[in-house]
Amino acid sequence: MLASTSSAAATAAITTHTNTNASCARRRNFSSDVQHHQRKRNTNNSEFRRQRRQKRRNNGDSTLFVTRAESGGFGDGITNNGLTREISEDVDTVLLDCDGVIWHGDALVPGAKKAVDYLRETLQKRVFFVTNNATKTREYYQWKFSELGMEVDVNHIYTAAFASASYLSAIGFNNTHGSTTTKDGSSSSNKKIYVVGEQGLVRELEECDVGDIVGGVYEAVSCTSSDWEEMHEWTGGDAENDHDDDSRVDAVVVGQDTSFTFAKLAYASYLIQKGAKFIATNPDAGDRLGKEKLLMPGAGPIVKAIETASGRAPDVICGKPGKYMFDAIMSHSHGDPQRTMVIGDRMDTDVKFGKDNGARYSVLVLTGANKMKDVEENEDESKQPSFVVGSLAEACGIPFDPNEPTQRVGERANMAKNYPVGDGTVHDLWASGDDDMDDDDDDYDDDDFIPAT
Amino acid sequence: MLASTSSAAATAAITTHTNTNASCARRRNFSSDVQHHQRKRNTNNSEFRRQRRQKRRNNGDSTLFVTRAESGGFGDGITNNGLTREISEDVDTVLLDCDGVIWHGDALVPGAKKAVDYLRETLQKRVFFVTNNATKTREYYQWKFSELGMEVDVNHIYTAAFASASYLSAIGFNNTHGSTTTKDGSSSSNKKIYVVGEQGLVRELEECDVGDIVGGVYEAVSCTSSDWEEMHEWTGGDAENDHDDDSRVDAVVVGQDTSFTFAKLAYASYLIQKGAKFIATNPDAGDRLGKEKLLMPGAGPIVKAIETASGRAPDVICGKPGKYMFDAIMSHSHGDPQRTMVIGDRMDTDVKFGKDNGARYSVLVLTGANKMKDVEENEDESKQPSFVVGSLAEACGIPFDPNEPTQRVGERANMAKNYPVGDGTVHDLWASGDDDMDDDDDDYDDDDFIPAT
Repeated sequence: MLASTSSAAATAAITTHTNTNASCARRRNFSSDVQHHQRKRNTNNSEFRRQRRQKRRNNGDSTLFVTRAESGGFGDGITNNGLTREISEDVDTVLLDCDGVIWHGDALVPGAKKAVDYLRETLQKRVFFVTNNATKTREYYQWKFSELGMEVDVNHIYTAAFASASYLSAIGFNNTHGSTTTKDGSSSSNKKIYVVGEQGLVRELEECDVGDIVGGVYEAVSCTSSDWEEMHEWTGGDAENDHDDDSRVDAVVVGQDTSFTFAKLAYASYLIQKGAKFIATNPDAGDRLGKEKLLMPGAGPIVKAIETASGRAPDVICGKPGKYMFDAIMSHSHGDPQRTMVIGDRMDTDVKFGKDNGARYSVLVLTGANKMKDVEENEDESKQPSFVVGSLAEACGIPFDPNEPTQRVGERANMAKNYPVGDGTVHDLWASGDDDMDDDDDDYDDDDFIPAT
Repeated sequence: MLASTSSAAATAAITTHTNTNASCARRRNFSSDVQHHQRKRNTNNSEFRRQRRQKRRNNGDSTLFVTRAESGGFGDGITNNGLTREISEDVDTVLLDCDGVIWHGDALVPGAKKAVDYLRETLQKRVFFVTNNATKTREYYQWKFSELGMEVDVNHIYTAAFASASYLSAIGFNNTHGSTTTKDGSSSSNKKIYVVGEQGLVRELEECDVGDIVGGVYEAVSCTSSDWEEMHEWTGGDAENDHDDDSRVDAVVVGQDTSFTFAKLAYASYLIQKGAKFIATNPDAGDRLGKEKLLMPGAGPIVKAIETASGRAPDVICGKPGKYMFDAIMSHSHGDPQRTMVIGDRMDTDVKFGKDNGARYSVLVLTGANKMKDVEENEDESKQPSFVVGSLAEACGIPFDPNEPTQRVGERANMAKNYPVGDGTVHDLWASGDDDMDDDDDDYDDDDFIPAT
């Protein structure tokens, strides 16, 4: 029963592993659910230890090992070895989600830098940073890591924007330079891409040289039925002769776009109905922001709108939990899923990302979106974590203090001026075309990426 | 077998009923599918007649009776009695879809006016005009009918906008006048409604006096994460004290909105997450417009976006094929579904509207969206018509000539200036508040409407 892979059985077997010397006052902060489990454990301590030993013997699938419970219980100084044995012995590659794991917005999560250092330097694991954000470039994230005290190779950063560019490259979207030029000097054989998304996504697609980004409807908001009927003319399309039409658009890439309009909805669905590839950066409904932690719309609602309007599902959803990004990272790193651990704060993206794609361990940390309650109520095996730990630090056996002061983006005064990240925008240097930047990254090899199957 | 209700069996039993004296030259215009059925019929004429007799004996469910086939076959002068027997003997109420049945855009469908006259005057049936359009008022449609030569009582017109207003009224959204006023004279107990939709929808909600329409994000396009975090403040909301908060919005009504923006998406989903009712006018993905007949986005994509962003499905989808509008019409007219015929050009809205709600007959006409091929390929019993007829005229036994010149909106010169309907906009007189208009329509009784169950 304990090794059962059914989520119901796994949920029933949830136990907590905390220092029994913790003060009662502290313990009262834990959720009532967890208190219940603690009481059960305390009344039968040897049975608890036996169960725990048995659980740790199997590979961790559907077995929950809680090093820390609900957020209310943080800060009582309890430590243990976390998942250090599993990481040391069973995995070579660790895929780390960023927001909710390494940082909260602009602030480092306590202990996260130490944990990353431990994984990369002490244990010498290959660590990749994997985010479903498709509004920023990898260079932006490299800068953000640097601001938070970590030096990260841009090739170890996977965003949903980069995954989208990689996918396009893998299916033959690669600019030709100079070989086939028209009279006005443009490369006529380049694929044409229409983007519904932020400037960071546009910039990433340009960086990866996967096609020419077309302007589309620019700043237009509305699209009346007359506009729609004229769309055929102003796109220069011709239903019978699409194959030799210079104005044909080959792909529509759709991500979160805080300036989404009906005109973009109409134009994107028009192009998809005309045969353009439909690439979704990621499926996230949104991020929980603000005092009330309500969902602010992400890429998901925009993708759904265009899917409904065009009558066609995306050809690929590039980000987590999809197969494409996982396979791309494995291929790039010559990694083995069975020697890979995924660590994230969301069951529907991070945990599912690992489970659906055959990772050895899929670990949920409780510093972000999902809480212990979500795990206990979950009935979907594909979202059931192998382990639940309080934080990334604790997964690495590092003490976690939620009140520990941490580095914030922008505290390095000289850089701060250039990156007004607080409002979700990115400085022009990274967000839009800049001729001074080196477009050729020799370390990056498109051939390492494979298309989704 | 012939009376089987399975759609596969029904499809297999499709036969055509045309004048066998039609010229071969004409007949070649029919689709190959229909030619196939014709050949089968011609080789075994007595068997065909026997089958037809047997089919006409049952109530018509899942039995197809084709008076005219694909559009290519129109205009050969073939006539018969259509569905006159069924209408005369079996039904009291006829629900007519408008676009694709009575008109195509601004032009009357040939024979449609004669058919409406026949139904209303000769047969004395109760005829209701039912459209999923939620961008225009009923008064606009009354004017449009008048332009096309038909005098129609506004209470016999059901739009998805009006159905939404009726639904709100049925669940207690009814303005109080004068009884509870604040210092500034506004009625403080009125419900507050945020509308994602065209001015015609706003106008209909105002006409029906179901609440105060709030401005929301007005002309804003974008909503950054900072804007989102501030939304709580500028809406004046307070998570703990929503019940006594003047700024709380009670319902969000969502329809097609050709000026939809990310700011509207964010605000609507914010309000729904805060507990506002979520009313969708209609589920249509869009209308097929332009030379290429591609889908221009309708209400569906916008509803889906808000549903995905808020994590909540609409509380009700008011238009066809939903239960609410059907029940409202039955209640209003004291009608009996088993004495009701629905006639429309779309299987997924009109036919399903009749089938799902227990109408005696659900009839597809071929002058609009769906063709014979769609019926033959359909495997969803709820979208399978009782009868397929070439046109509304032919359903009434009236000859149909697709090339017959018909009335167009705007041909009455004096009125035309006031109604620039061609671009989808509506003149201010109907579309927005106009104090000269009489808000009280004594013929209209909210109590006649019942909520969806």
